[in-house]
Amino acid sequence: MNFLEERIIKDGVVKEGNILKVDSFLNHQLDVELFDEMGAEWAKRFEGVEINKILTIEASGIGIACVAARHFNVPVVFAKKTQSVNLDGEMYTAEVESFTHKNKNHVIVSKKYLNENDKVLIIDDFLANGCALQGLISIINSANATVAGIGIAIEKGFQPGGQIIRNLGYRLESLAIVDGMDPATGKITFRN
Amino acid sequence: MNFLEERIIKDGVVKEGNILKVDSFLNHQLDVELFDEMGAEWAKRFEGVEINKILTIEASGIGIACVAARHFNVPVVFAKKTQSVNLDGEMYTAEVESFTHKNKNHVIVSKKYLNENDKVLIIDDFLANGCALQGLISIINSANATVAGIGIAIEKGFQPGGQIIRNLGYRLESLAIVDGMDPATGKITFRN
Repeated sequence: MNFLEERIIKDGVVKEGNILKVDSFLNHQLDVELFDEMGAEWAKRFEGVEINKILTIEASGIGIACVAARHFNVPVVFAKKTQSVNLDGEMYTAEVESFTHKNKNHVIVSKKYLNENDKVLIIDDFLANGCALQGLISIINSANATVAGIGIAIEKGFQPGGQIIRNLGYRLESLAIVDGMDPATGKITFRN
Repeated sequence: MNFLEERIIKDGVVKEGNILKVDSFLNHQLDVELFDEMGAEWAKRFEGVEINKILTIEASGIGIACVAARHFNVPVVFAKKTQSVNLDGEMYTAEVESFTHKNKNHVIVSKKYLNENDKVLIIDDFLANGCALQGLISIINSANATVAGIGIAIEKGFQPGGQIIRNLGYRLESLAIVDGMDPATGKITFRN
């Protein structure tokens, strides 16, 4: 087990409905020492890959991306999530529809901060169905920029998002892949 | 002029309606090296003050708070902003009304992550009328925690938020206080 899997075992809480609560260290209270360790791990895994920008999405991706960015010496851009969209031509916009919730969201990045020279590492806290991630990839493609890689803290391996992204040929580095959770016992199974 | 004021002069854009656009380095694209320098500066200014937690508010405060927290060796908690609120008793909630926009927002923090032993440094990117900041202070008071200090990147000194907070006796350290902006010439005047 790696450091993140150990932390999930220690402080994560499994709830009914395939919910994994990690708000004590990952997405409400934030353990920035852990984020630093995650950044170092991604830097190791993406060593030799050209990366000049990190892209994340509000809100809980921002802290992880910013601390991790210190290991890459690159700026972070965070996409905004909104239900309405002001199409003023100065923004890249992706409409993403949740397969499970059926609601639509827009993912938005200013055209000023993404262009065809950018080699982008996407960072986010969770990957389940991959809706937000698909929106971020769509935006990078709109900008004619390159997806250099994707770093995810926790992937829910029993939901399809990660497999879809790998099928599409993207390099996806999830630090912890949860293959199963039992709300009755609290047991969490990680992929080897 | 300090490093942040210099950066504002270099990359900030003054728009009609007292708007200062700093989205190229502070709140859309994020210069994490600059955030680190800001963190070091707050650590210097709050040296000797007991701080065991940093509180910020989504979205643009999170990156600054996380990078700054590395200088304090404390966790970050970010408050969520929402227009509706589910009062389930597990959350501290503050209703804040914008004097200028008249809209109401709720600022929310889980009761698990704030308690009477916490000495809290509030960090945020902007202070103008101080609406969000008032909500954060209200939540810290609800938790019987202590406001150890407030660190703001850019204070609009010609709007009342900062003065109100100082009148209330809080220690407020704004790294740049803008006293005036001229959209015609782009000139920005800082407080000495």
